[in-house]
Amino acid sequence: MKVLVLTGMPGSGKSEAVKVAEEMGIPVHRMGDLVREMVKAKGFEVDRANMQAVADGERRKFGPDVWARRTVRLIAEAPLLVIDGTRSLEEVEVFRRELGDRLVVACVHASPRTRWGRIGRRGRPDDPRTFAELVERDQNELRWGLGAVIATADVMLVNEEGKGTLRAQMRRVLLDPMSPPAQMPGAPALDGTKKQG
Amino acid sequence: MKVLVLTGMPGSGKSEAVKVAEEMGIPVHRMGDLVREMVKAKGFEVDRANMQAVADGERRKFGPDVWARRTVRLIAEAPLLVIDGTRSLEEVEVFRRELGDRLVVACVHASPRTRWGRIGRRGRPDDPRTFAELVERDQNELRWGLGAVIATADVMLVNEEGKGTLRAQMRRVLLDPMSPPAQMPGAPALDGTKKQG
Repeated sequence: MKVLVLTGMPGSGKSEAVKVAEEMGIPVHRMGDLVREMVKAKGFEVDRANMQAVADGERRKFGPDVWARRTVRLIAEAPLLVIDGTRSLEEVEVFRRELGDRLVVACVHASPRTRWGRIGRRGRPDDPRTFAELVERDQNELRWGLGAVIATADVMLVNEEGKGTLRAQMRRVLLDPMSPPAQMPGAPALDGTKKQG
Repeated sequence: MKVLVLTGMPGSGKSEAVKVAEEMGIPVHRMGDLVREMVKAKGFEVDRANMQAVADGERRKFGPDVWARRTVRLIAEAPLLVIDGTRSLEEVEVFRRELGDRLVVACVHASPRTRWGRIGRRGRPDDPRTFAELVERDQNELRWGLGAVIATADVMLVNEEGKGTLRAQMRRVLLDPMSPPAQMPGAPALDGTKKQG
């Protein structure tokens, strides 16, 4: 069983990659799902402010990795599962500890300029309205260690050339997670011994 | 004039990308060059310890961005220049402030597993000897904000499939830096106005 944790900066095209998984019938868990359920269970309205308040309240009570730990508990014995929305190094470390080699971290990357182009077109009300605002928000996102997650991703999907190219890359990863590293001849095994190349 | 700052984790294949630039006759400035010159000028032997001592000494005296500021001063009026070895967000911010839109940040990415395969093969004496050591050193590298630089790179070169593929990507970037974003139809300009798509 493999668990593919999907990450990326806002506007990189992560949600299109998630769609590919869903169309292939692969279960997708969104990191916000558990928070959303708890907000509902408490009888609050599901909006940004309540989601944030409940998420942060639990983090203060049970530690910054609480949502990752609860997500791990949820993972069923499906042959492949996609987790969407991981944004901190701490969360990935929980997954790594619990899942070991079954974890594959995949990142969707696009340049700030390309992401700005997409965000400008989709026009969600809480999106940045200038390029400078996007750059500022990027630095906010990166404060929790998202940059380290991206820098050490197992798979990098480059999304500069339109949906078709991204979808093809994502399909390939889902059909054979971590295939490029595993196929590389002469790569030493993770314990330091050499494979036959 | 464009300045291409090249970054990437150890073992990602950055030095192969630099080689492509050199073969094309594009000037390459290595971030260590100025430190090396200073070590020599002081009459010390050029080794790891002296390089580190001189680099850190200057940072303490003149600020953590001192080497980036000195590099900017060096940049001649070549139509294209490659800067190799930037590893901190602070350095990139200096380049961004001084160069504005002339700066292109390019990252060479490979998965930790692939990088471990390469590092194992090259066998430099100060390379990590186990995969766990590589993971630990990665986190050290990332402490200075390298992850944020990678996450917001303008160009991502994925180096999983051998030198030929990386070299082709690098050549394309050097012939036309930032081409994918610029060609994207309908992208708004950086000031928020829409281009014709």
